[in-house]
Amino acid sequence: MKRIYLDHAATTPIDARVKEAMDLFLTQDFGNAGGLYREGRIAKDAMEGARATIAKIINARSEEIIFTSGGTESDNLAIFGVSEAASSSSKSDFRSAKKSDFFPGEAAKPHIITTKFEHHAVLRPCEELEKRGFDVTYLDVGEDGIVNPEDVRQALRSETILVSVMYANNEIGTIQPIAEIGKIIKEYKKENKSAYPYFHTDACQAAGYLDLNVNNLGVDLMTVNGPKIYGPKGIGFLYRKMGVKIKPQILGGGQEIKMRSGTEPVALIVGLAQALKISQEEKEAETNRLAPLRDYFISEAIKRIPKVVLNGHPIKRLPNNINVSILDIEGESLVLYLDSKGVACSTGSACTSESLDPSHVILALGKPYEFAHSSMRFTMGKSTTKEDLDYVLEILPKTVEWLRVVSPINLDISAKSMSHPEVFAGENLRVKAKSKSYK
Amino acid sequence: MKRIYLDHAATTPIDARVKEAMDLFLTQDFGNAGGLYREGRIAKDAMEGARATIAKIINARSEEIIFTSGGTESDNLAIFGVSEAASSSSKSDFRSAKKSDFFPGEAAKPHIITTKFEHHAVLRPCEELEKRGFDVTYLDVGEDGIVNPEDVRQALRSETILVSVMYANNEIGTIQPIAEIGKIIKEYKKENKSAYPYFHTDACQAAGYLDLNVNNLGVDLMTVNGPKIYGPKGIGFLYRKMGVKIKPQILGGGQEIKMRSGTEPVALIVGLAQALKISQEEKEAETNRLAPLRDYFISEAIKRIPKVVLNGHPIKRLPNNINVSILDIEGESLVLYLDSKGVACSTGSACTSESLDPSHVILALGKPYEFAHSSMRFTMGKSTTKEDLDYVLEILPKTVEWLRVVSPINLDISAKSMSHPEVFAGENLRVKAKSKSYK
Repeated sequence: MKRIYLDHAATTPIDARVKEAMDLFLTQDFGNAGGLYREGRIAKDAMEGARATIAKIINARSEEIIFTSGGTESDNLAIFGVSEAASSSSKSDFRSAKKSDFFPGEAAKPHIITTKFEHHAVLRPCEELEKRGFDVTYLDVGEDGIVNPEDVRQALRSETILVSVMYANNEIGTIQPIAEIGKIIKEYKKENKSAYPYFHTDACQAAGYLDLNVNNLGVDLMTVNGPKIYGPKGIGFLYRKMGVKIKPQILGGGQEIKMRSGTEPVALIVGLAQALKISQEEKEAETNRLAPLRDYFISEAIKRIPKVVLNGHPIKRLPNNINVSILDIEGESLVLYLDSKGVACSTGSACTSESLDPSHVILALGKPYEFAHSSMRFTMGKSTTKEDLDYVLEILPKTVEWLRVVSPINLDISAKSMSHPEVFAGENLRVKAKSKSYK
Repeated sequence: MKRIYLDHAATTPIDARVKEAMDLFLTQDFGNAGGLYREGRIAKDAMEGARATIAKIINARSEEIIFTSGGTESDNLAIFGVSEAASSSSKSDFRSAKKSDFFPGEAAKPHIITTKFEHHAVLRPCEELEKRGFDVTYLDVGEDGIVNPEDVRQALRSETILVSVMYANNEIGTIQPIAEIGKIIKEYKKENKSAYPYFHTDACQAAGYLDLNVNNLGVDLMTVNGPKIYGPKGIGFLYRKMGVKIKPQILGGGQEIKMRSGTEPVALIVGLAQALKISQEEKEAETNRLAPLRDYFISEAIKRIPKVVLNGHPIKRLPNNINVSILDIEGESLVLYLDSKGVACSTGSACTSESLDPSHVILALGKPYEFAHSSMRFTMGKSTTKEDLDYVLEILPKTVEWLRVVSPINLDISAKSMSHPEVFAGENLRVKAKSKSYK
């Protein structure tokens, strides 16, 4: 059976051109980039070439690129790195007199602004920092899945050391107004003569389709990783603007300008650069090809299946992202059924997450629990064709109809609160709704 | 010109069988191991198969293997992870009443024991923990480069939470009495009815040649990485015995039983398992082949070149490790010269390290500064032949003679202190000797 892979937001295959670029460094040119001799220099040159390629694409300097093991580590490095550097700095490091009272143990807590629907690689470090005495504002997200820049402005205060807002959401693909937020932060810093807050964006999902020019975006820190842009798994980078103070999180031999120790995985680094280069070169053509397919699928799905709701803004979203709630359906069942019919996709259903909680992203939109539980994400990629989508559109209505026959739920499409929370509860599952907890 | 690669302790080429095992997951089977569908299950099965393979080799359980980005991250996870978990635990978590007073902010500081010649991936985290209020004992190393287990016993105290001693040293290859130290710690814990200290070993260099049975070794935590055992760069693991409390260092999606978040790099994981399997299968044959070559090279070098001193124990060392100080020579010059003659090797000379300090390993042996500066490491591997060594032995005496003609130093082979520290000082270099500092 032909497979139709529609989970490119989870991971992409490696582009053949990327694999080809990597192969040399997985075979012949295996040297340690720290070696003084020929093998080492070849490795180092390749790595620095990759770094320069990436820097040029995002309009940065080579020394502003820190290679890491991926998006999660980059996010952690940005958030813990900035927070720990800020709290261990002496007061004189800060230009603003107002900043003088935000160090732990003193009156005001250092403050971080982020959003309710960030990736867990951002949220979990923020939660950890709360335990360490930081104050974190988790901004609400609009019903359309877009953060209001004015909310960021309102949340800024003299103790704010970091703002972290994702460039495009990983579940619903909505694109955030990063450049606008960047401007607001820049103005704030100028007015307050402060070096803080720094502005971080997780651009993992955006990197394949959007402009990554850090000047245009006005970001100080940016996360990108390989496996979302047809590059290898196990590699990513953190852009860190010159002068931005971060404390390294992995200590050792002092690689990556002492910001991230460990033998550099040259093959992965070369692959990452090649993947980013190709992605950025092809992003316009891919966007033009995929956006109409996305819109076609969404409108057809809504037309052909009753009670289907689009999650997130219809247009301000990644061209490859389709995320719909198919009411009265348990997402996991549908994923497994579609899998049996050759289609790979994902869901925000509770059962699929480590925490056994349903998608925090769908809930952040203000939707009831069932919308998360029945949310289906189809993320297209280079291999996706209209025929693929037509196949899914053909099997989906029948499947949904069948699943609804056995479903105990019958939700009103305009519902704003939980109808039957108890039906979601089961072994090891807890459901919170209407201020009650079901188990 | 034929290249003779003698820096296998820095990194090894990838074994063709490892590359072959990886390729499937760099091409066709690219799925995210978190996916519910076929592509995801294939990835997950491969990953869990790799985990089981590794677990079996080291006599552990699958859930005791945490995949990381490599040796440095594994060491950091062990040291920071144990330290942070111990200091955030409630007193009741500890079996021993004696342990009740070692938490930060209270009377006694939590205590770590390690050695002066550990890898920087262990030393730097320990130094960082000292800044955070931990007490660290850096044990002396014998002249032969071997830690005395009795020194560990002497250093143990009720506040000791962790002992970290490397299995084999990365520069001089000396093999540490891990099993003996493990027994001492086990006895101590039994006598004191305490769950602490945990025992960690960095086995990165050892993994290719020595027994990794964690029961035999008596370790609670063990670091292994790919690029030292003919596996890929960017992958390693930390063995963590069930029940050993560590705090995760990279937070996010909750992968690796919540101990290390981030999309799992399946190709690298599969490669690591294959590399470890092959290394352990072939270790006896390789040891039998390489140890005589090692001994041959050492004795010939000492015979043919005046003032050559072996660093580390002659026999209790890895079969592939040759480390000699060639007095009055600046190691970097010799490395570069040998490189021009087709030979890749390394040195403990200051110029080659990030810190601009000479090898802390050679200095830990109690040797004067010049011994570090003139230390040369030749580490053999699968491709190394007697002919390779004969070639090096042929060109080495002439080169050394020539370099000595232009050298300002003339050190007595039995020297115990610095002769001419000023000659090592140069731009950006500082030399500490005889309680003076030269620049």
